[in-house]
Amino acid sequence: MPKTKEPKKDQKKEIGITIKKEEEFGEWFSQIITKAELVEYTDVSGCYVFRPNSYSIWEKVQAFMDSEFRKLGVRNAYFPLFIPEKLLNREKEHVEGFTPEVAWVTHTGESKLSERLAIRPTSETIMYDSYKKWIRSWRDLPLKINQWCNVVRWEFKNPVPFIRSREFLWQEGHTAHRTKDEAEKEVFQILDIYEKTYNDLYAMPCIKGFKTEKEKFAGALYTTTIEIFLPNGKSAQACTSHCLGQNFAKAFDISFLDEKEEKQHVWQNSWGYSTRSMGIMICMHSDNKGLVLPPRVASTQAVIVPITFADSKEKVLSKAREVKKCLESEGISVVLDDRDELTPGWKFNEWEMKGIPLRIEVGPKDVEKDQAVIVRRDNGKKDFVKTADLGKKAKEALEQMHKDLYDRALRLRQDNEAEAKEFHELTKAIKDRKLVKAAWCSSTECEEMIKDKTGGAKIICIPFGKDMDRKEAKGRCVCCGKPAKYEVYIAKSY
Amino acid sequence: MPKTKEPKKDQKKEIGITIKKEEEFGEWFSQIITKAELVEYTDVSGCYVFRPNSYSIWEKVQAFMDSEFRKLGVRNAYFPLFIPEKLLNREKEHVEGFTPEVAWVTHTGESKLSERLAIRPTSETIMYDSYKKWIRSWRDLPLKINQWCNVVRWEFKNPVPFIRSREFLWQEGHTAHRTKDEAEKEVFQILDIYEKTYNDLYAMPCIKGFKTEKEKFAGALYTTTIEIFLPNGKSAQACTSHCLGQNFAKAFDISFLDEKEEKQHVWQNSWGYSTRSMGIMICMHSDNKGLVLPPRVASTQAVIVPITFADSKEKVLSKAREVKKCLESEGISVVLDDRDELTPGWKFNEWEMKGIPLRIEVGPKDVEKDQAVIVRRDNGKKDFVKTADLGKKAKEALEQMHKDLYDRALRLRQDNEAEAKEFHELTKAIKDRKLVKAAWCSSTECEEMIKDKTGGAKIICIPFGKDMDRKEAKGRCVCCGKPAKYEVYIAKSY
Repeated sequence: MPKTKEPKKDQKKEIGITIKKEEEFGEWFSQIITKAELVEYTDVSGCYVFRPNSYSIWEKVQAFMDSEFRKLGVRNAYFPLFIPEKLLNREKEHVEGFTPEVAWVTHTGESKLSERLAIRPTSETIMYDSYKKWIRSWRDLPLKINQWCNVVRWEFKNPVPFIRSREFLWQEGHTAHRTKDEAEKEVFQILDIYEKTYNDLYAMPCIKGFKTEKEKFAGALYTTTIEIFLPNGKSAQACTSHCLGQNFAKAFDISFLDEKEEKQHVWQNSWGYSTRSMGIMICMHSDNKGLVLPPRVASTQAVIVPITFADSKEKVLSKAREVKKCLESEGISVVLDDRDELTPGWKFNEWEMKGIPLRIEVGPKDVEKDQAVIVRRDNGKKDFVKTADLGKKAKEALEQMHKDLYDRALRLRQDNEAEAKEFHELTKAIKDRKLVKAAWCSSTECEEMIKDKTGGAKIICIPFGKDMDRKEAKGRCVCCGKPAKYEVYIAKSY
Repeated sequence: MPKTKEPKKDQKKEIGITIKKEEEFGEWFSQIITKAELVEYTDVSGCYVFRPNSYSIWEKVQAFMDSEFRKLGVRNAYFPLFIPEKLLNREKEHVEGFTPEVAWVTHTGESKLSERLAIRPTSETIMYDSYKKWIRSWRDLPLKINQWCNVVRWEFKNPVPFIRSREFLWQEGHTAHRTKDEAEKEVFQILDIYEKTYNDLYAMPCIKGFKTEKEKFAGALYTTTIEIFLPNGKSAQACTSHCLGQNFAKAFDISFLDEKEEKQHVWQNSWGYSTRSMGIMICMHSDNKGLVLPPRVASTQAVIVPITFADSKEKVLSKAREVKKCLESEGISVVLDDRDELTPGWKFNEWEMKGIPLRIEVGPKDVEKDQAVIVRRDNGKKDFVKTADLGKKAKEALEQMHKDLYDRALRLRQDNEAEAKEFHELTKAIKDRKLVKAAWCSSTECEEMIKDKTGGAKIICIPFGKDMDRKEAKGRCVCCGKPAKYEVYIAKSY
């Protein structure tokens, strides 16, 4: 092997992931996100730095979603961070849902403000105060606006980077429509875009459904959701698309004259997708060597590691540069790691930690054979490929890796689904960290009983039926034994 | 003319700009930005909505700058909104400069925070607390990070949308280097990118120079700036690139081991470009008909207005659709305004108000002659163009419009430059709303005298000399008559 500094054993250990995903999930997650340089902790609990390695993922998500939103005629805008208290208070359920978590600005410079200002936990109230001014006639509809911004929710539960942070980044779309039908159609279109983003970028399958009345967005008519089942047996609410009905329209008096010159209130939706999605992806795909990045969110998709010896160094490096061009010609973003001071083994570990999808090894023997070795990050599979085929094969490997990651995540969910007819089956399955399918009578009493008696599991959603309605159940409620109304998924959740 | 509803005269007046740019600049600006639907006012003074028509400009700026920053190896990230008070207080000059304008979060939900949190007015202190952790060795340098975010500065001067708002959007770059030379080189590279953005996107020429000691960024070694002279005789600080020296590095103890294993403090820069730039552009180019958008920031570059009569409507619309394809094939973003309920005249006014660079008229005669009419927004010039040449000619018209806007802005500045040798010449020129070139001894006394005795004009910058140093002056100081040190620009300013 080449003569360069190998780190000492204990140093290596410190640099690598020292905790197993299957043993201590939380600690493992924490090591992944810090050692792969995704986040940095700060002195403010619940507020984290998105380092370039994670922010670049978010930028890919933004670009993808923006292009999807544009197809629906959505335009981007930016509304103020501050919401005057009286505006936040306008819609009753909304204010009750959000004020317990609001961060308040009370002073500026040396002065006390006459009215304190909320930092947006979500922007319905500040946006709809403008919508009221902009919407006059049916010709002004639909109005479809999205913003990418930071929001603050001062949760008092234990914060977890990405998953539950006090400040996070998201997009929030806010639309106004003439009819309920038009609005409702969009609720599902948006959820489809969200699903597509999870499927096509993050390589994860989704469960789509409705939130229960108890769990819906504060102020909404109903909430649709995407839930994703994770390897630690918890489900994560991955994003939501709300039909607001006319609740806010009435509270803010957002109305228009229809074609008969009659005044109508608009029908509204709001929908959001946040940086939590990155956390879900990390939980899903990463392993005990570090981060695993699905190829389509990786800003570096392949790294070339030359394996050099003094006598053949130039030949190998020259080959490595050729390999780089082959990959770039296929649109693959690639880095050549020609750092002199580190051994190939050290580099392997580092790039594995950072989750780069493909490693390309080029050594003296590969130069002789006019080939290179493609190694996949997710399964370690090695492929010896002739230089002429490298670009094509690397591209295929990236596509295959995307599919395999998706399939593995789907299998994980399928392997962990359980059905519960009786309550004791439910508690047992939850204890076994399963995703439980059950029938529910739709009463809040039973919903609360589930939470109380399973150690915190809850109804994560009522899955969609054939007509995108709430899937009906035939049997009896898993809690009370009365005739069931809906099929539900129950799990511990983030 | 076609038989559709023409708005009543007074309605038309209300919709158009009713105040002249050359008479009441402030009122005119306010009409432009609201009637072209660029901003909306909110209940919080100094906080505005960036509506889609302005936010889309900002997105173009972001894309352009991101690609330029990437060439320098800058990576994007996101740091928290909140800065603990003790962190903000770490660098003495910095805290003195910013605390008078800080918005403070003191409460969350029902609880009082034990330490109040500043909403970032700029992110040096929160970022450098992380930099300290990330930088250990010379191999970690240079570190070049940028973030796009909102910041809050609770200024007590009269707020003006875009130009002086309490919340604004910007990018802030923060870099750390091994040597002063390397850092300083970057300060000017960045200023060049900023200039390029003003020149190539916004079609405006720049004055580049140094801020005086009094006007530099709080905590910096020195500040370089771009200043832009506006039609109302005021100059606007358009963006700044600071060399921070080692001030923050020492306050935050950001150090590295150099190649000799010796501890060194890093050399740092920070640099920012904000949504103020849009305000400057609006002030510069727009006219008494409304907004004028430089073609490269216009998300819609051309609008086709068909001029239809009952008997030829289909023919004209079909031609208009053909014209649309011609323009799109040249990469021009174009809208076909086929709304039935409005007259062409009404549409002309509306699109002029919104600043769309080109209007393409297609009427029955144009169909006969196989042509269309290209009308430029900036000068009203009409060009009758054969269909076959339309794409090419429209593209040329956009390029020419960009150049003409730039040239006109440059001429404006040149025509308004004055030189002052004596103080009474200075006061006279300032009264005449000139951009005054003068010699200055470099004393703070004289700098303050300028402000006091000219009704608020100030030294906006010391322009660059041949070697990117401060341009030296030969004569005597315009204030005290002692030997001058630097040439300076003096103007009233935003």
